[in-house]
Amino acid sequence: MDCKIGVISGDGIGPEIVTEAKKVLEQIGNKYGHKFQYTEILMGGCSIDATGVPLTDEAIEAAKASDAVLMGSIGGNTSTSPWYKLAPELRPEAGLLKLRKSLNLFANLRPAYLYKELKAACPLRDDIIGDGFDMMIMRELTGGLYFGERRTEEIDGVMTAMDSLTYNENEIRRIAKRGFDIAMKRRKKVTSVDKANVLDSSRLWRKIVEEVAKDYPEVSYEHMLVDNCAMQLVKDPKQFDVILTENMFGDILSDEASMVTGSIGMLSSASLNDTKFGLYEPSGGSAPDIAGKGIANPIATILSAAMMLRYTFDLDKEADAIEQAVKQVLKEGYRTIDIMPQAGESKEGITQVKTAEMGDLIAARV
Amino acid sequence: MDCKIGVISGDGIGPEIVTEAKKVLEQIGNKYGHKFQYTEILMGGCSIDATGVPLTDEAIEAAKASDAVLMGSIGGNTSTSPWYKLAPELRPEAGLLKLRKSLNLFANLRPAYLYKELKAACPLRDDIIGDGFDMMIMRELTGGLYFGERRTEEIDGVMTAMDSLTYNENEIRRIAKRGFDIAMKRRKKVTSVDKANVLDSSRLWRKIVEEVAKDYPEVSYEHMLVDNCAMQLVKDPKQFDVILTENMFGDILSDEASMVTGSIGMLSSASLNDTKFGLYEPSGGSAPDIAGKGIANPIATILSAAMMLRYTFDLDKEADAIEQAVKQVLKEGYRTIDIMPQAGESKEGITQVKTAEMGDLIAARV
Ligand SMILES: CC(C)[C@H](C(=O)O)[C@@H](O)C(=O)O
Ligand SMILES: CC(C)[C@H](C(=O)O)[C@@H](O)C(=O)O
Repeated sequence: MDCKIGVISGDGIGPEIVTEAKKVLEQIGNKYGHKFQYTEILMGGCSIDATGVPLTDEAIEAAKASDAVLMGSIGGNTSTSPWYKLAPELRPEAGLLKLRKSLNLFANLRPAYLYKELKAACPLRDDIIGDGFDMMIMRELTGGLYFGERRTEEIDGVMTAMDSLTYNENEIRRIAKRGFDIAMKRRKKVTSVDKANVLDSSRLWRKIVEEVAKDYPEVSYEHMLVDNCAMQLVKDPKQFDVILTENMFGDILSDEASMVTGSIGMLSSASLNDTKFGLYEPSGGSAPDIAGKGIANPIATILSAAMMLRYTFDLDKEADAIEQAVKQVLKEGYRTIDIMPQAGESKEGITQVKTAEMGDLIAARV
Repeated sequence: MDCKIGVISGDGIGPEIVTEAKKVLEQIGNKYGHKFQYTEILMGGCSIDATGVPLTDEAIEAAKASDAVLMGSIGGNTSTSPWYKLAPELRPEAGLLKLRKSLNLFANLRPAYLYKELKAACPLRDDIIGDGFDMMIMRELTGGLYFGERRTEEIDGVMTAMDSLTYNENEIRRIAKRGFDIAMKRRKKVTSVDKANVLDSSRLWRKIVEEVAKDYPEVSYEHMLVDNCAMQLVKDPKQFDVILTENMFGDILSDEASMVTGSIGMLSSASLNDTKFGLYEPSGGSAPDIAGKGIANPIATILSAAMMLRYTFDLDKEADAIEQAVKQVLKEGYRTIDIMPQAGESKEGITQVKTAEMGDLIAARV
């Protein structure tokens, strides 16, 4: 298969981790007979430095011309980087928001999964962890507070700022369907999260989710208030299969869920639209403090490449091969510094490796 | 001192836990020579049943005529109770929102504290707990998405719902001042939480917090994005002293923080305005499943009464006496069922007691 991949290396550790993902894809290409063609796309701080804006129209066109986009990470240190002295719409993150909207990437899938080998890194008590947990957050990504009208103005001499949270039934229906579809391939449970005791948009959300649920009689579903969900993720994460929620709640809960797994350096994500196109990126940030040191964990990016093979190219076997290789490498005891055993834990059989070695090890095992 | 206290017993376990708080106040009154006069105020489901609405104008007037209001809890089972078949503005929670707004209770203080004696209930790993943690969430309570304009309408045949999130500089300034004031009495650190990379209201929030911070040179402060804060609460709750944030983020983060402590049956809260008036209530819910069984934990409500003595009546010594009595009772091994040792833990020296016994034990020790 011929795969046209747009690559957003981005800022911070982005270029380092993307290099390792390409290394693994290279190996997949050799073994299974696929051709990966890459186009570098500028976004974030590096785009600001080169063009003055975080995402140019040409960059958007290049992304649209690709089958999928693989991304590292964007942005820098928000207190010290000059990028954060710019107007909000010129900062690195504005590029990402613009790309999501331009490509209509309304469905953000964020798996939150506990790796057995990394159980010790999980911040929760052993009896809560049990056999581990495995959730999929389905976050709406192109609506709500992120893309509503907003303004800051003086009203009777008082500075006043307003953001608006809007959803229409079609936006809710399409993400709800995605949520139930993915539940059908998993443990067939959907938890729809809202704040229906306060928000009109949540009440519409709840109503449409109930309508959609009728078409999935095999899926059990429940509604949960967002404040309660924030508690339940800590109290008993095992209860969740698919969490379906709007943009801002999804931002908060997916980060909480990924931290709860303790495996944040391992978690990938996909942002999808109505076609096979997808933007694939690790859940973690650009980690400017360790950029250039060659010690970042490339696994989340490598697993994002696997998600890309699965969702955009329907190459399930190849995606499996990457995921197996990652598990194998962990089993053999290889760790980047962020997932090394904690103080007091045994380091027997554990080898600390750098970014490039981790990429080599995984590539060698696909 | 003569203290006029409005009492909202409310629904579910509300009446049971309020009874115990009054029992403890009675003892304080005897010992220190104060007189507590109570006026019952209807709010929530019981008000719906009696009057058709969750909060009448007379109830608001009665609250206004009190020095402080002590509340149990309101609401019922959202799937089975007939209250939740009513229009949103007629449901139990609407009464609480109306009361907050009518009394201008803009400052919601929610301590999140790990009780050493209940360490085993904390869902986090031992090395993360360390010596425990002690945060104060300062949540804005009368602005933002909770009280903005909202509407649901058909636009070109498509149902569309909109909520708005508005803050003006005065609303932000007054809550920020409260946050810094309370930090001065604590460990002198404020973490202001927003989503300034997306929201105009958050950018105004950040700007005003920075202005206010200038008047508190002794307090160190930082800004944190809400998604990051949701992670940090799980990863390292010890880092926080005062968390200052807007209404919806505060709803989510304060519930997460209270669950992280594992001591949710022990956590009180206060909602304050510009006067000495306050509404005091436990952080937990109305627990309709155990209502009437006499097994609910009254400690959070008893500690809310202590907060009332401290903040509204400036009776610090008396508040201390209650807090000490609670610690003493825990030390002696008395527990309601919700805070009993977990399976596998030792029950040596632990006695399970019911709601009324717990109240008696604490009253006897003030
Ligand atoms: C960078 C930021 C705008 C973004 C978001 O809030 O969506 C990020 O936190 C994420 O979750 O992808
Ligand atoms: C009952 C509900 C409206 C309320 C809120 O969201 O403020 C509750 O969750 C709280 O935190 O006091």
